[in-house]
Amino acid sequence: MRKSDNHNKQPFLRHLGDAIRSRRVDLVLSQEQVGVRANLHRTYVTDIENGLRNISLLTLLRITNALKSPPSSPILVAEKAMGTVKRGKK
Amino acid sequence: MRKSDNHNKQPFLRHLGDAIRSRRVDLVLSQEQVGVRANLHRTYVTDIENGLRNISLLTLLRITNALKSPPSSPILVAEKAMGTVKRGKK
Repeated sequence: MRKSDNHNKQPFLRHLGDAIRSRRVDLVLSQEQVGVRANLHRTYVTDIENGLRNISLLTLLRITNALKSPPSSPILVAEKAMGTVKRGKK
Repeated sequence: MRKSDNHNKQPFLRHLGDAIRSRRVDLVLSQEQVGVRANLHRTYVTDIENGLRNISLLTLLRITNALKSPPSSPILVAEKAMGTVKRGKK
Protein backbone atom coordinates (compact mmCIF):
# COMPACT_ATOMS: atom_id res chain seq x y z
CA MET A 1 0.00 0.00 0.00
CA ARG A 2 2.95 2.27 -0.40
CA LYS A 3 2.73 5.28 -2.64
CA SER A 4 6.31 4.77 -3.75
CA ASP A 5 9.43 3.09 -2.55
CA ASN A 6 10.51 6.30 -0.86
CA HIS A 7 9.32 4.54 2.23
CA ASN A 8 12.29 2.22 1.99
CA LYS A 9 14.70 4.70 0.57
CA GLN A 10 14.20 7.39 3.17
CA PRO A 11 14.20 6.01 6.68
CA PHE A 12 14.66 9.51 8.05
CA LEU A 13 11.29 10.58 6.63
CA ARG A 14 9.69 7.43 7.98
CA HIS A 15 11.00 8.05 11.49
CA LEU A 16 9.95 11.68 11.25
CA GLY A 17 6.46 10.58 10.20
CA ASP A 18 6.32 8.17 13.14
CA ALA A 19 7.25 11.00 15.50
CA ILE A 20 4.57 13.27 14.04
CA ARG A 21 1.93 10.54 14.28
CA SER A 22 2.91 9.75 17.84
CA ARG A 23 2.61 13.40 18.87
CA ARG A 24 -0.78 13.71 17.14
CA VAL A 25 -2.09 10.60 18.88
CA ASP A 26 -0.85 11.92 22.22
CA LEU A 27 -2.89 15.06 21.61
CA VAL A 28 -5.92 12.92 20.65
CA LEU A 29 -6.23 14.68 17.31
CA SER A 30 -7.31 13.17 14.00
CA GLN A 31 -5.28 13.62 10.84
CA GLU A 32 -8.15 15.74 9.59
CA GLN A 33 -7.94 18.05 12.61
CA VAL A 34 -4.20 18.47 12.14
CA GLY A 35 -4.82 19.12 8.45
CA VAL A 36 -7.28 21.89 9.24
CA ARG A 37 -4.90 23.50 11.73
CA ALA A 38 -1.94 23.27 9.34
CA ASN A 39 -3.95 24.06 6.22
CA LEU A 40 -2.99 20.76 4.61
CA HIS A 41 -5.22 18.07 3.14
CA ARG A 42 -5.90 15.11 5.41
CA THR A 43 -4.37 12.70 2.89
CA TYR A 44 -1.23 14.81 2.79
CA VAL A 45 -0.97 14.49 6.58
CA THR A 46 -1.39 10.72 6.12
CA ASP A 47 1.44 10.67 3.60
CA ILE A 48 3.70 12.69 5.89
CA GLU A 49 3.02 10.30 8.78
CA ASN A 50 3.85 7.40 6.46
CA GLY A 51 7.15 8.98 5.48
CA LEU A 52 6.08 9.37 1.88
CA ARG A 53 6.57 13.12 1.59
CA ASN A 54 9.79 15.03 1.52
CA ILE A 55 8.21 18.09 3.10
CA SER A 56 9.70 21.56 3.16
CA LEU A 57 10.82 23.27 6.34
CA LEU A 58 7.85 25.66 6.25
CA THR A 59 5.45 22.73 5.96
CA LEU A 60 7.22 21.11 8.89
CA LEU A 61 6.66 24.34 10.84
CA ARG A 62 2.95 24.28 9.99
CA ILE A 63 2.67 20.70 11.20
CA THR A 64 4.63 21.24 14.40
CA ASN A 65 2.69 24.45 15.11
CA ALA A 66 -0.50 22.44 14.71
CA LEU A 67 0.92 19.93 17.18
CA LYS A 68 2.15 22.65 19.54
CA SER A 69 5.68 21.30 19.46
CA PRO A 70 8.95 22.85 18.34
CA PRO A 71 10.10 21.86 14.83
CA SER A 72 13.22 20.27 16.29
CA SER A 73 11.15 17.77 18.24
CA PRO A 74 10.30 15.27 15.43
CA ILE A 75 13.72 15.88 13.87
CA LEU A 76 15.45 14.87 17.08
CA VAL A 77 13.29 11.75 17.38
CA ALA A 78 14.10 10.76 13.78
CA GLU A 79 17.79 11.46 14.34
CA LYS A 80 17.82 9.27 17.41
CA ALA A 81 15.95 6.48 15.62
CA MET A 82 18.44 6.65 12.75
CA GLY A 83 21.29 6.42 15.21
CA THR A 84 19.94 3.46 17.14
CA VAL A 85 18.59 1.47 14.20
CA LYS A 86 21.63 2.15 11.97
CA ARG A 87 22.09 -1.08 10.03
CA GLY A 88 21.21 -3.12 13.11
CA LYS A 89 17.86 -3.94 11.57
CA LYS A 90 17.32 -5.74 8.34
CA MET B 1 20.01 42.29 -3.09
CA ARG B 2 17.20 40.05 -2.01
CA LYS B 3 15.79 37.51 -4.38
CA SER B 4 12.34 38.02 -2.93
CA ASP B 5 10.72 39.28 0.20
CA ASN B 6 10.76 35.78 1.64
CA HIS B 7 13.69 37.07 3.57
CA ASN B 8 11.34 39.23 5.60
CA LYS B 9 8.45 36.86 5.62
CA GLN B 10 10.31 33.84 6.88
CA PRO B 11 12.60 34.67 9.77
CA PHE B 12 12.90 30.97 10.55
CA LEU B 13 14.57 30.34 7.19
CA ARG B 14 16.84 33.32 7.70
CA HIS B 15 17.99 32.09 11.10
CA LEU B 16 18.46 28.61 9.70
CA GLY B 17 20.58 30.04 6.90
CA ASP B 18 22.65 31.96 9.41
CA ALA B 19 23.26 28.77 11.37
CA ILE B 20 24.31 26.89 8.22
CA ARG B 21 26.65 29.70 7.17
CA SER B 22 28.16 29.87 10.63
CA ARG B 23 28.84 26.14 10.65
CA ARG B 24 30.37 26.28 7.17
CA VAL B 25 32.66 29.14 8.15
CA ASP B 26 33.70 27.25 11.28
CA LEU B 27 34.76 24.37 9.04
CA VAL B 28 36.62 26.80 6.74
CA LEU B 29 34.66 25.59 3.73
CA SER B 30 33.53 27.66 0.75
CA GLN B 31 29.93 27.59 -0.47
CA GLU B 32 31.26 25.85 -3.53
CA GLN B 33 32.86 23.09 -1.46
CA VAL B 34 29.64 22.54 0.46
CA GLY B 35 27.77 22.50 -2.84
CA VAL B 36 30.03 19.79 -4.21
CA ARG B 37 29.65 17.69 -1.06
CA ALA B 38 25.88 18.12 -1.00
CA ASN B 39 25.43 17.93 -4.75
CA LEU B 40 23.86 21.38 -4.88
CA HIS B 41 24.81 24.39 -6.97
CA ARG B 42 26.93 26.99 -5.23
CA THR B 43 24.29 29.67 -5.80
CA TYR B 44 21.68 27.43 -4.24
CA VAL B 45 23.86 27.16 -1.14
CA THR B 46 24.11 30.97 -1.17
CA ASP B 47 20.33 31.25 -1.31
CA ILE B 48 19.91 28.79 1.55
CA GLU B 49 22.35 30.73 3.69
CA ASN B 50 20.44 33.90 2.88
CA GLY B 51 17.16 32.31 3.98
CA LEU B 52 15.72 32.55 0.49
CA ARG B 53 14.94 28.87 -0.01
CA ASN B 54 12.29 26.81 1.68
CA ILE B 55 14.34 23.63 1.41
CA SER B 56 13.03 20.11 1.85
CA LEU B 57 14.07 17.88 4.70
CA LEU B 58 16.19 15.71 2.41
CA THR B 59 18.04 18.77 1.13
CA LEU B 60 18.58 19.81 4.74
CA LEU B 61 20.06 16.36 5.37
CA ARG B 62 22.41 16.74 2.42
CA ILE B 63 23.58 20.11 3.71
CA THR B 64 24.05 18.97 7.29
CA ASN B 65 25.82 15.80 6.15
CA ALA B 66 28.17 18.02 4.13
CA LEU B 67 28.73 20.04 7.29
CA LYS B 68 29.11 16.93 9.46
CA SER B 69 26.40 18.08 11.81
CA PRO B 70 23.07 16.53 12.77
CA PRO B 71 20.04 17.99 10.95
CA SER B 72 18.60 19.16 14.28
CA SER B 73 21.58 21.44 14.85
CA PRO B 74 20.62 24.39 12.57
CA ILE B 75 16.94 23.84 13.42
CA LEU B 76 17.67 24.24 17.12
CA VAL B 77 19.70 27.40 16.47
CA ALA B 78 16.87 28.88 14.38
CA GLU B 79 14.31 27.90 17.00
CA LYS B 80 16.32 29.58 19.72
CA ALA B 81 16.81 32.71 17.61
CA MET B 82 13.07 32.86 16.96
CA GLY B 83 12.39 32.54 20.65
CA THR B 84 14.77 35.25 21.73
CA VAL B 85 14.05 37.72 18.94
CA LYS B 86 10.28 37.17 19.05
CA ARG B 87 8.77 40.57 18.25
CA GLY B 88 11.46 42.29 20.30
CA LYS B 89 13.05 43.48 17.11
CA LYS B 90 11.42 45.67 14.52
